[in-house]
Amino acid sequence: MQIYADNAATTRPSRAALAAMLPLLEEGYGNPSSLYTIGQKAKEALEDARAQVAAAIGAQPGEITFTSGGSEADTQALFTGAALGARKGKKHIISTKFEHHAVLHALEALEKQGYAVTLLDVPENGVVPVEAVAAALRPDTALVSVMYANNEIGTIQPIAAIGALCREKGVLFHTDAVQAVGHLPIDVKAQNIDMLSMSGHKFHGPKGVGALYCRRGILPQNVFYGGAQERGRRPGTENVPAIAGMAAALTEAVATMPETSPRIAALRDRLIRGILAIPHSVLNGDARQRLPGNANFCFEGIEGESLLLLLDQKGISASSGSACTSGSLDPSHVLLAIGRPHEVAHGSLRLTIGEDIGEKEIETIIESVTEVVAYLRGMSPVWRDLQEGKRSYVIQ
Amino acid sequence: MQIYADNAATTRPSRAALAAMLPLLEEGYGNPSSLYTIGQKAKEALEDARAQVAAAIGAQPGEITFTSGGSEADTQALFTGAALGARKGKKHIISTKFEHHAVLHALEALEKQGYAVTLLDVPENGVVPVEAVAAALRPDTALVSVMYANNEIGTIQPIAAIGALCREKGVLFHTDAVQAVGHLPIDVKAQNIDMLSMSGHKFHGPKGVGALYCRRGILPQNVFYGGAQERGRRPGTENVPAIAGMAAALTEAVATMPETSPRIAALRDRLIRGILAIPHSVLNGDARQRLPGNANFCFEGIEGESLLLLLDQKGISASSGSACTSGSLDPSHVLLAIGRPHEVAHGSLRLTIGEDIGEKEIETIIESVTEVVAYLRGMSPVWRDLQEGKRSYVIQ
Repeated sequence: MQIYADNAATTRPSRAALAAMLPLLEEGYGNPSSLYTIGQKAKEALEDARAQVAAAIGAQPGEITFTSGGSEADTQALFTGAALGARKGKKHIISTKFEHHAVLHALEALEKQGYAVTLLDVPENGVVPVEAVAAALRPDTALVSVMYANNEIGTIQPIAAIGALCREKGVLFHTDAVQAVGHLPIDVKAQNIDMLSMSGHKFHGPKGVGALYCRRGILPQNVFYGGAQERGRRPGTENVPAIAGMAAALTEAVATMPETSPRIAALRDRLIRGILAIPHSVLNGDARQRLPGNANFCFEGIEGESLLLLLDQKGISASSGSACTSGSLDPSHVLLAIGRPHEVAHGSLRLTIGEDIGEKEIETIIESVTEVVAYLRGMSPVWRDLQEGKRSYVIQ
Repeated sequence: MQIYADNAATTRPSRAALAAMLPLLEEGYGNPSSLYTIGQKAKEALEDARAQVAAAIGAQPGEITFTSGGSEADTQALFTGAALGARKGKKHIISTKFEHHAVLHALEALEKQGYAVTLLDVPENGVVPVEAVAAALRPDTALVSVMYANNEIGTIQPIAAIGALCREKGVLFHTDAVQAVGHLPIDVKAQNIDMLSMSGHKFHGPKGVGALYCRRGILPQNVFYGGAQERGRRPGTENVPAIAGMAAALTEAVATMPETSPRIAALRDRLIRGILAIPHSVLNGDARQRLPGNANFCFEGIEGESLLLLLDQKGISASSGSACTSGSLDPSHVLLAIGRPHEVAHGSLRLTIGEDIGEKEIETIIESVTEVVAYLRGMSPVWRDLQEGKRSYVIQ
């Protein structure tokens, strides 16, 4: 049995996405900037997709700019918010220590340009309290950027409360919602979100496409240069097939969410209970305030990479954390941010389940993880030392 | 009969491109940064595509970075070259007045950062002489950026000669080869090209994907931020299906070029002869030193947009110039650069033919353009004034 349990890394494009893409790849290949018929038909597909994406998050079509993905959208949002702040003499930005690297590295670039950045600590439960944001606000704060849901531990942040606070204080609010869009209900107006980033391939759309929502009145600043596409907000011939695929996937995800979300959350809870039966294991992040499909664990005395390779041999695709940094030997900055020590952060496992998973697959995952953890501990000198009392358990 | 004659705007994805893409969209959707099997298979597809793209231009795989398209690649090249120059205290950049807006607007951004930019004049034949580049070189020149072939008038620049000059003078050389890759033979080593930009959808690959070649030793600088994909050179989950589609299309284009290129050039020459039989018409750009599929004309007493709409009614897709600026009412900066007056630049027609065009289609295009130009002139007050001697012809 093949079980794909890494939907936070990427998802299988849905049939709806492929059905929207294929005719635009095969026949409807016109450039939407062209005046003739097949160009204008591509333009219609583009604007139809924009309306769908906007509707899915409670925005207006004119507030959506299509990008190449989440990283580009995040960078564009932060640079836009920073530039708008600088015009008013405000050069302070608040974010958190467990953001995606798209946000953290863009903030480093802004620091080099003279912006001051405050990165909030993250409590052990992986939920940044709105009070922490409030306490960090300064008179020169231009922008707050807090992710909607963490990409590793899946914890959901109090976005509406942060949005309300920022609106009250006249500070722009961006949320990296790459892991949330298509998985949680979002209403940018009700939640007072000024800017929001999304990525198509995280909700069964294709790779290479994303979108940036900017509230009316906020003009996105270019991160690279070219023609006047997207009303001058983002250059390059619009990737119409991928944009249409993303829109179709998102429309479907939002429509089916009332059914899929509680079903997946129940499976996730069964998964968490099953895995936590393994001695000296811990769930990373709050058990309730998390994405329906996300379960993330640390195991004492285990090396994460071996765990993944052995699970792969059993047909289970899982990860230790973000795929974006899997080449790195450093432990996850997210797990360090919530206070896991280095030696335990190395032994992490992220399981992110999707719509195609049922109870049978959940039981298989639990059995396989239990088996592989026991096997690896049997070979682990660290585990032997722990058993023999030569070192102490971090995870009780 | 439907005739698509706007291949410079975008092209129909080839069967080879679609065949490479579909399995990666449908089943091989893994994230290439993931350690498990379907991730590693995606990684193999990615590296295979990189090798193909490199081979097509005489580069090494490690010299290829995948981007979202030509505009991103152009921006990245210019910012990279500028930053490398600045480290040596060199802040002068040479380019030309008829570059794509991706280059021109990136240069404007660099000017705001304190770089000095010289934009070379373009002679009426649309070919920038190497002597003009030589004359503009200064001791503080860091970078020369000259497009391989112009996107509107199709003229081919003396890239190898400019490359040799730059290498001799120790100046970096970038070429925007978006219109040339897949249409002209390119060898980055023999031509001394340090950086080169390409775009998949200009040679029957998909939209939303491109590549930047940077000679070994030149580390591309990020234009936006995120994970460590592409060895830290370009963040965001790699768009593997599109990258594989681009590579397949390019491999096919290079393999078939010896056959297709002279055939298309012969059809282009027939097209040019046929259209120039229309009185008071002129070819824009050198007749020989141009892309095989490009023909670009100005007609006295004609408004370009009406011409395109009437051709579209006859089933012919054509443009007045770049699709990227078609929303603009300004005349083409390219036609102004080669010295066409405003009133004539407004009456331009770009026909860019591809592999699917035969003699029959060429005759249909000639007949249709001749008919539509006569019809529009019959209604044109400008044409009446010209005929009655109340104003003088610009085009004899």
